[in-house]
Amino acid sequence: MTPSDPLEAAVGRAFGLIVGPRTPPRLAAAMDHAVFPGGARFRPRLVLAVAAAYGRPTVAAESVAVAVELLHCASLVHDDLPCFDDASTRRGRMSVHARFGESLAVLAGDGLIVGAFEVFAHAMAQTPALAPALSVLAAAAGANGGLVAGQGWEDEPTADMQRYHQAKTGALFEAAVCVGAIAAAADPEAWRPVGVALGEAYQIADDIGDLIATPAELGKPVGQDLLHARPNAAVELGADRALARLQATWSRAIDTVPPCPGADEFRAWMIASCSRIFGRRTATQHLPVRHGAPLSA
Amino acid sequence: MTPSDPLEAAVGRAFGLIVGPRTPPRLAAAMDHAVFPGGARFRPRLVLAVAAAYGRPTVAAESVAVAVELLHCASLVHDDLPCFDDASTRRGRMSVHARFGESLAVLAGDGLIVGAFEVFAHAMAQTPALAPALSVLAAAAGANGGLVAGQGWEDEPTADMQRYHQAKTGALFEAAVCVGAIAAAADPEAWRPVGVALGEAYQIADDIGDLIATPAELGKPVGQDLLHARPNAAVELGADRALARLQATWSRAIDTVPPCPGADEFRAWMIASCSRIFGRRTATQHLPVRHGAPLSA
Repeated sequence: MTPSDPLEAAVGRAFGLIVGPRTPPRLAAAMDHAVFPGGARFRPRLVLAVAAAYGRPTVAAESVAVAVELLHCASLVHDDLPCFDDASTRRGRMSVHARFGESLAVLAGDGLIVGAFEVFAHAMAQTPALAPALSVLAAAAGANGGLVAGQGWEDEPTADMQRYHQAKTGALFEAAVCVGAIAAAADPEAWRPVGVALGEAYQIADDIGDLIATPAELGKPVGQDLLHARPNAAVELGADRALARLQATWSRAIDTVPPCPGADEFRAWMIASCSRIFGRRTATQHLPVRHGAPLSA
Repeated sequence: MTPSDPLEAAVGRAFGLIVGPRTPPRLAAAMDHAVFPGGARFRPRLVLAVAAAYGRPTVAAESVAVAVELLHCASLVHDDLPCFDDASTRRGRMSVHARFGESLAVLAGDGLIVGAFEVFAHAMAQTPALAPALSVLAAAAGANGGLVAGQGWEDEPTADMQRYHQAKTGALFEAAVCVGAIAAAADPEAWRPVGVALGEAYQIADDIGDLIATPAELGKPVGQDLLHARPNAAVELGADRALARLQATWSRAIDTVPPCPGADEFRAWMIASCSRIFGRRTATQHLPVRHGAPLSA
């Protein structure tokens, strides 16, 4: 991130729309803490990268990207609550509830969920062609297979790992590529397989990280899946087979990029970004590799 | 409510959209508990009554009404949480967190917030003219003067009563009349004053009820405002002056109904509904009265 990063500028503008003079000050501070500074902002960057594959991303694409990021931030705030993970750190500092208390953490998450749709509404007022992205966003966040469902599986006596991961992680990755395509007036369904594969790869990398990384490396508690008896691919498959599956899934993400003017640039962006993100999580410098050979951007 | 009540049928259809085969079963049960059976469903009925003032309410109006109701139900579930009111009863039975635990109550609220926008998206796909209602809904629910802000004022050391009540109660009443007008292709701003006045009246009635009613009468704990040191109009003004203000505010709601084909029917509906709701809350059979004389529907 640089000061002139267009995505960060868009996040800042959007924040000024959803938090303003009629926001209680402590709530405003809690929401700020949840959004700034961000993590990798991988999901909104994915939205922008898909839109960029059809030309320069528009203001509309930036707004939809921010909406995706706000939904993600909201889910982190609620997942960290004492009644879920009870995580006191996030992104290397205090989590929202640890810093501001439970009630403001609940409200900050609520405000960010609503805010995502507020930002989207604002963008749609300028760009009516965005309308189909609303269903995509809402379904990805919702209780029927979206983020809320993913978290909900943790409250069931048993949960199928694939269904759990698809909802908790995959849904928003799928939505990210689909809304990026919609913002570029391209076919969202052509991009969905890329999102599915990326979501799977991301989750496997996260599971490996939860098993083998240190809290300092990830900026959050580790060993959470074992602690909470949650499905974890690295625990179920073993680290080696999980790593092999990460590589296979990752190859699938690259192979399913649909024909588009900027396909090569998109793949290069994906390789560079994911090498960094997956490599850090899995403590594997040579990730992602493809067909047995390390890839470089 | 009768089995053939179109609003209840619409709520049921919408629920089937946001809770489905990919919803974890316990989460589905918690969301069901939050929505069925409903209370007075006053806010969505207000949406439909405004739309009906321009002819028979459409399926689009019903969907927007349901979206308003889902946002309301979500706010009740989160407000009842231990970190806020810690209310163990709601609508005469266990609150969601008392029955299903805190984590599912947080998720049920989240799922209903997202669900409101999912239902709206579905309606907008059929009726693109609904689009402007998205901003109205999101702003009414959000952190900058909406429901989330209203709840957030309870976490501040001090809160201005009017600002607190406007956000916590007024915002969704305003939104209800505005989106009802949008669904009927009428001017939402012409209706806003009706929503403002109704929201104020509703809040004053609620404050009086919190002070003087019994838990059995309201189906939820009473005395909460004093317990939580929250602004309460009946406490600040005294019951008599609060009642007088309720009557004045209520008169204003009636007087500001804009010219429309069904203005008389709308006023009659409002008088019948509010007499019942306000009368129950304030234990005053003669409410609402206007210009000193009891009104009948």
